[in-house]
Amino acid sequence: MSDNYAVIGKNLPKIDGRVKVTGQAKYTGDLKFPNMLVGKILTSPHAHARILSIDTAEAEKLPGVKAVITHEDVPGLKYGISPARWDENIFCIDKVRFVGDKVAAVAAIDEETVYKALKLIKVEYEVLPAVMDPIEAMREGAPQIHDEYPGNINTEVHQSFGDVEQAFAEAYHVRTDQFIGQRTYQSPIEPHSAISIWEGGKLTVYTSTQSPHYFQYYIAREFGLKMGDVRVIKTYVGGGFGGKLEPTGLEFAGAVLSRITGRPVKMFYDRHEMFAHNRGRHKQIMKVTTGVDKNGKILGVHADFIMDGGAYTSLGIATAYYAGAMLPLTYEFDNYKFDMLRVYTNLPACGAQRGHGAPQPRYAFECHLDMVAGDLGMDPMELRLRNARQPNTVTPNAFQVNSCELKACIEKGVEISGWKDKRGKLPPGRGIGGAVGSFVSGAGYPIYRTNLPHAAAIIKVHEDGTAATLYTGATDIGQGSDTILCQMAAEAMGYNYENMKIVSADTETTPHDFGAYASRQTLMSGAAVKQAGEEVKAQLLEIAAEMMDVAAEDLDCREAWIYRKANPDERKPFTEVAREFFVRRGPLVGRGSYTPPKLGGTFKGAPVGTSPAYSFCTQISEVEIDEETGEVDVKEVWDVHDCGKVINPALLHGQVHGALYMGMGESIWEEVVFDDKGKIVNGNLGEYRLPTALDMPKITSELVDSVEPAAPWGVKEVGEGATIPTMGCFANAIYDAMGVRIHSLPLSYEKVWRALKDKRKKEEKK
Amino acid sequence: MSDNYAVIGKNLPKIDGRVKVTGQAKYTGDLKFPNMLVGKILTSPHAHARILSIDTAEAEKLPGVKAVITHEDVPGLKYGISPARWDENIFCIDKVRFVGDKVAAVAAIDEETVYKALKLIKVEYEVLPAVMDPIEAMREGAPQIHDEYPGNINTEVHQSFGDVEQAFAEAYHVRTDQFIGQRTYQSPIEPHSAISIWEGGKLTVYTSTQSPHYFQYYIAREFGLKMGDVRVIKTYVGGGFGGKLEPTGLEFAGAVLSRITGRPVKMFYDRHEMFAHNRGRHKQIMKVTTGVDKNGKILGVHADFIMDGGAYTSLGIATAYYAGAMLPLTYEFDNYKFDMLRVYTNLPACGAQRGHGAPQPRYAFECHLDMVAGDLGMDPMELRLRNARQPNTVTPNAFQVNSCELKACIEKGVEISGWKDKRGKLPPGRGIGGAVGSFVSGAGYPIYRTNLPHAAAIIKVHEDGTAATLYTGATDIGQGSDTILCQMAAEAMGYNYENMKIVSADTETTPHDFGAYASRQTLMSGAAVKQAGEEVKAQLLEIAAEMMDVAAEDLDCREAWIYRKANPDERKPFTEVAREFFVRRGPLVGRGSYTPPKLGGTFKGAPVGTSPAYSFCTQISEVEIDEETGEVDVKEVWDVHDCGKVINPALLHGQVHGALYMGMGESIWEEVVFDDKGKIVNGNLGEYRLPTALDMPKITSELVDSVEPAAPWGVKEVGEGATIPTMGCFANAIYDAMGVRIHSLPLSYEKVWRALKDKRKKEEKK
Repeated sequence: MSDNYAVIGKNLPKIDGRVKVTGQAKYTGDLKFPNMLVGKILTSPHAHARILSIDTAEAEKLPGVKAVITHEDVPGLKYGISPARWDENIFCIDKVRFVGDKVAAVAAIDEETVYKALKLIKVEYEVLPAVMDPIEAMREGAPQIHDEYPGNINTEVHQSFGDVEQAFAEAYHVRTDQFIGQRTYQSPIEPHSAISIWEGGKLTVYTSTQSPHYFQYYIAREFGLKMGDVRVIKTYVGGGFGGKLEPTGLEFAGAVLSRITGRPVKMFYDRHEMFAHNRGRHKQIMKVTTGVDKNGKILGVHADFIMDGGAYTSLGIATAYYAGAMLPLTYEFDNYKFDMLRVYTNLPACGAQRGHGAPQPRYAFECHLDMVAGDLGMDPMELRLRNARQPNTVTPNAFQVNSCELKACIEKGVEISGWKDKRGKLPPGRGIGGAVGSFVSGAGYPIYRTNLPHAAAIIKVHEDGTAATLYTGATDIGQGSDTILCQMAAEAMGYNYENMKIVSADTETTPHDFGAYASRQTLMSGAAVKQAGEEVKAQLLEIAAEMMDVAAEDLDCREAWIYRKANPDERKPFTEVAREFFVRRGPLVGRGSYTPPKLGGTFKGAPVGTSPAYSFCTQISEVEIDEETGEVDVKEVWDVHDCGKVINPALLHGQVHGALYMGMGESIWEEVVFDDKGKIVNGNLGEYRLPTALDMPKITSELVDSVEPAAPWGVKEVGEGATIPTMGCFANAIYDAMGVRIHSLPLSYEKVWRALKDKRKKEEKK
Repeated sequence: MSDNYAVIGKNLPKIDGRVKVTGQAKYTGDLKFPNMLVGKILTSPHAHARILSIDTAEAEKLPGVKAVITHEDVPGLKYGISPARWDENIFCIDKVRFVGDKVAAVAAIDEETVYKALKLIKVEYEVLPAVMDPIEAMREGAPQIHDEYPGNINTEVHQSFGDVEQAFAEAYHVRTDQFIGQRTYQSPIEPHSAISIWEGGKLTVYTSTQSPHYFQYYIAREFGLKMGDVRVIKTYVGGGFGGKLEPTGLEFAGAVLSRITGRPVKMFYDRHEMFAHNRGRHKQIMKVTTGVDKNGKILGVHADFIMDGGAYTSLGIATAYYAGAMLPLTYEFDNYKFDMLRVYTNLPACGAQRGHGAPQPRYAFECHLDMVAGDLGMDPMELRLRNARQPNTVTPNAFQVNSCELKACIEKGVEISGWKDKRGKLPPGRGIGGAVGSFVSGAGYPIYRTNLPHAAAIIKVHEDGTAATLYTGATDIGQGSDTILCQMAAEAMGYNYENMKIVSADTETTPHDFGAYASRQTLMSGAAVKQAGEEVKAQLLEIAAEMMDVAAEDLDCREAWIYRKANPDERKPFTEVAREFFVRRGPLVGRGSYTPPKLGGTFKGAPVGTSPAYSFCTQISEVEIDEETGEVDVKEVWDVHDCGKVINPALLHGQVHGALYMGMGESIWEEVVFDDKGKIVNGNLGEYRLPTALDMPKITSELVDSVEPAAPWGVKEVGEGATIPTMGCFANAIYDAMGVRIHSLPLSYEKVWRALKDKRKKEEKK
C-alpha cells in the first residue's frame, strides 16, 4: 500500500483551534435565547429513603418561579443507556437511592430565584438503611435497592473459553492476586449543560453531548415522540471522557419544564452536582489467577471481578463485559474464564470512563503478571514479550485481531526507556515499571438499533469548488475528530484541508452517527467520510474526463488538481471542474456510510462488543518516591503505540499525553470519597486531586509501523487505548521503587507512606 | 395535468410561524459573540463636497475605541451590485456625493463610545455645488458627480421594436401624457444589521440579506478572497423588499474593522440611517405616447422616461430596463419604443423596490390608457380587455409569454367589484378605478456569473424517515419561501409537510441559489427542490421495489406511504423504506438544480432580463374623497391574479395584501422628502407616512385558473406582481371620484385638496 498521502499523516492545525483560543467557540452555557428560563434539579440528601410526600406549594408561590415539577408531571417510563436494563426515572417515585438522586425541578427567571425555590420544596422522607459497599450489598439481609433486582445484582457475567481448570492443573506455577480499583470521575472541564426548547410538539435540545444521535433516540423514546420531532444539537464540548454519552435530568427535566412553560429552559450542573451525577469509573474488586509453564508461557487465566455499580445501570452492562473481554487481547492463551458481578449500592451510578472498564482489570493483570514474573525470576517485560499477541490471531473469546505490533511496542519501549539498564538497577526510592494494553476501535455492536450503519457522512462541494462542507454526526468533544475527518475527506476527494468546512453534529442537519465512545470515530466515521469523499472524486473525474476528452479511469485528483495519471502535467484545477459539474449536473454531493463486518464474538448466542480492529501499546514509567512523605514523583513516561496509520500525528500524541495525564491522576491521586451517609466529601476541584500541569512528567510518545486491513487507510484508535496500561505501569514502577506491593488504587502518598512504614516495621522485627 | 396534490395547494402553517410569534427567532441584531465590538459609519453632512482631510487622532485616543478606519485602510476596489457599473467605494476617497455618503468607521466596546468617537473624527470639506434634480443634472454646466459619467448619465436605454412612428401616423388617435413617480423607501421593519468575524484569513458574516450567495460573491471580490473563504449566513430577516439585496458598508466596513481588531464587529443602521442609505424606489419622469385605432386597439407605444438615480448605480441598470421592458407584457401591440435616461444626482442612490422599476411606468401607462379610453368614450376596462395579452404570445421586445389569463382577471375583476354598476355611477366624491399588471417569475439572466444554475437544493432524509431536511440557498425574508419550498419538497418526495425541516440560507451549508429578488424563488428554487424531492422518491421506490418484489415503476409514494399503483392497499410506510435504504445504501440524499431555458429576449445582442414565466393581474379599487380636506379614504380593493398553480393559498393572499398595503402607501402617502441641501426631512417612521392597519381597506383577493407549462407544477410569482397595478388603479379611482387628473405621485391629501380647489376656481371662472 502506497503511503504517499497528501493530507493525512500531516500535522495540520485543528480546524476549531482558532475559534477556541480566541474565545469565539460557543458552548451550551454560552447560548442565550429570548425568554430563557433557568432550571435546576432538587436532589436527595439521603442515600436511601422512602419519599412520603413532596410539597411544592411554597416554591410555586415564589415570584419568578414558572414551573415546579415532580414525578407526577413527567413520563413514568423508565430509561437508561443500557438496553433492556432501564432502571431510572426522570424523578424518583417511591424512593431515592443515592445522595443526589433526582426528586423535583424548578424553572424560574434567574438562578437566584431557582435556588431559593429549591429550598422551598418540602420533601418528607422515611430514611432507609443504606449500603455503600458491593460485598455488603450482596449479603443476605442487605437493604434492597431495586425490587426487580434481588440481592442487588445488576449484571452477572460468567464466560468460559477453553478449560481453565485443566490449564491450571497442568501449569508449572499458578498464582492468584486480588486488587482494588477505585471510583474516579471524568471531571471534564466543561460542566454538563442543556437548553431545551419544546415548541409546537417538537423538541430542540442544545447540549454538551458525546452522541447527539443517542440523545435523540433516548429523549424521543422517553417522551413518545418520533425521532424526527426531536432535534439534538451538539455545541462545542469541553470534554466528555464517557460521562456525556447518556442524557441526564438536564435534558429530561429541561424538556418537561420547557413544555410546561412554553419557554427555553437552560439547565446545568455545577461542579459538585457533576460529581453527584457521576457516571464515572466503577470501583472494581479484582481477583486474577494465572497459570504459566516453566518458561512463563501463560496457559490459562481466570478473572473474577466484582463492581460497585452505584444506584443505577448507566453504561454498566458494557463496563462489566469490557472489564473481562479485553484482558486476553494482549497475550496469547487458549483458556480463559471471566466472572463478573455488577452490584447496586446506594452511591451515584457509575458508567463509562475513558477505557471503559478495561484500565482497572488491566492494572490488576499487569501487576499480577509482574508478580508471576517475579516468582519465575524472569524480567517482566520479557514475560510479556514471550506471551505477546501476534497479528492475524483470534482471542479465546473470539475477537479477531488483524494488525498487531505489540511485540514491536514492547521492544521499542524497552529500548527507548533504557529498561535493561534501569530495571532493578536504579538507586533506592527510584523505580521503573511497564505494562501493555489494547483497546477496541469502535464497538461492533451499537448500544441500540443494531442493524443500522454505524456512521454516515455527506460532503457538499461549494458551487465553484473553493470550499467543501462535511456533514457528520461524529462528535468532536475536544479530541480533534472534526480535524481528522476533514483531513480524511480532503484526502479521499483529492482536495485541500484548508478549504474544508464541517458541520458536526446535529440530528437535523447531519447524518446518523453513533458518536464519540468506544474510540470508534477514526475508524468508523472515517470509513463513511472516505466513501463520501471518494464519491465526490468519482463524480468530478467523470466531468473532467468529458472536459479533457480522456477516460475517467485515466484521471486522478490530488491536492485540488485533477490530472492524467500517464502525464500529471495534463491537469485542471479542482475548482474549474467543480464549477463545471455544478453547471452540468447541479450540486456536487458525496455520500458514505459504514457498517462493521459481522464479527465473530458471541457468547451464548448473544453478540459481545467486539471491534473491527484493536490498538496495542506499551507504557513504561520511571518514578521516584520520597521515603519520608510517600510522595510519588513521576519522572518520565514512555508510550509506544500501534494505532495503525496516523491521520494527524500532533493530535495523536496529544491524545497519548491526555490519556497519560488522566491515567496518572487515577494511579496516584484521584478517588471519589464518600462519608458514611453516602455523601461525597471531595466533590470539587480543590479536594478531588486532579494532576496539574506541574505534575506532568516528561513524556516520550512513539509509534510503530502498522496498517490495519479492516480500516480506512489502515487507521486504528488512540483516544482510550493509551489509558489502559497506565495504572499498571505506575503500580509496577512504584513497586520497583519501594519493594512493597500496594494492592489498591490510587497509589496515594498516604498509602505509599503507610506501606513503607509497615515495611520498615517488618524489617525491624526481623 | 392532474391536480390531486397532497401537500401543495394547501393552507399549511408557516414553518417559522411559531418561532417568530414566540420571539425565539433570532435576527442578526439578536446575536452576540464573545468580545464583540460595535461599529458605526461616519457619513457625509454635505450633498457634494471635496474631502480635504480626515483627522482620526482624537477618536483613536478615546478609551474603548478599538479601530478607526477611512479609505486609507480599506481596499480601493470599486464595487456595486450592477455588473460593469461599479461606482462605489467602501469609503469616499476624493469627495462625497450625497448626505449620508460613507467617510469613515469606528469600532468600539459599546454604542455610547462609538457615537462619541464618530463626533471626534474631524473631516475638512470643500463644499461643491450639488444637484438634486435629474433634469437639472443633465443641463450643461451642472455639477459633475462622477468624472467617468459626463453629463451625469448613469444608464441610457434606447430600444425600438417595430415602427412606432409609422404606427402613430396610421393611428386614429394619438395621445401623450406625462407623469411623475416619486422616491419612496422600502422601510423593512428590521433595520439592516451585520456581524463580521474575520478570523484566520477567513470571513464569516451574519447578516440580514436577501441573497447570501450574492453577498458572498461581492464581499469575496472586494477583499480578493476565494468565495469558499467567505461565509455569509442569513439569519431571520424582517423584510427586504429589494433593499437588502446588495452588501452595504455594514458588511464591508465591518469586515475591515473585524480584521483589524481580531474581534467580531456588529454594525447596524438606525431608522434614519436606513433612509439615508436608501436604495429605494427611483423617482421617474414618464412621458407616454400611445396610438390607437377607432376601436381602441393599441397600435404603438412610446415610453420616454427619466430616472433620478441618486449618487450611485446600485441596482439601477436593471431598474432602468425593467421600467420599459414590462409595459408591453399586458397588451398586445407590435410597435414599441422605449427611451430611458438614469441620471446621477446628489441624493441617496436608488435601487430595487418591490416591483423593481415597473410599478411607476405601469401607473403612468394605466392612467394614460384611462385618458385614451376617455378620449374614445370607451369604458377603460373594456379598452384593456380588447388589448389584453393572450397566452402563448410574444411581446414586441421578444418576451415569450406562455400561460396568461389576463382577460379572465379583467373579467372577474369587473364582475366582483360591481364595476359596471359603479363606474361613473357613484355619488360625488366616490370613485372606482382599475388597472392591470404583469411581472416576471425570476430573471432569466442573473446579475453575475451567467452560466451557473440559478438554484440548487439538497434534501437529506433522517435515518428512520421521520424527518427530512431541505438545504436551500433560497432566502425567506418573511414572504414564506421556507414554507412553500418545504411543501414542494414534501409533494415531490411523497412525504408529509409537518416532518420537513429546512436550512436556509448559508453559503457554507446550503447549495447555491441567487436568493430573493425578481420574484424568482417559487419557480426557480422550487424547480430545484422538486428535482431533489423526485430524486429522493426515485431512490426510495427502488428499495421499496426490492422489499415488495415489484418493479419500481409500478410504485408511487404519497403522504409518506409507498404503494403499488395497481393496488394502493399494497403499501409500506415511507419510514420503513427510508430506514431500509439507510441500512442498505447509507444516507438518503436528493439533489436538484434549475437553469432557466435560453430565453429569446435580446437587445443589440445583449440579453435582457426576461423570465421563464409571467404573472398577470387586475386590480380595482373604490375610494372616497373628502372634498373639504382632500383626505382619500380607500373603501375597498379587488385583486384578481393569474399566478399559476398556488402552493399555499393563505401565504399567497398574504402576499397580495402586503403588496396592496405597500402600493397603497406609495399611491397616497409615502415620499422621501429632501431639503435644498439634500438632507432627508422625513427619515423616520413618524414623518415618513407608512399606512397603518387602520388605513387598510377591505381586500378581496381572487385567483383565476392557470398552469404555467415552464414551471414546476405550473407555479408563477405573486410577491411583486400585486404591487404593479396598485398606483394606477388608485390614481384612476381618485380621478373617477374627483374628475381631475393629478399627474404625480403620491396622490396626497394636499394634492387632492389643491386640485379640487383649482377645479372649483376654474368652474367659478366659467
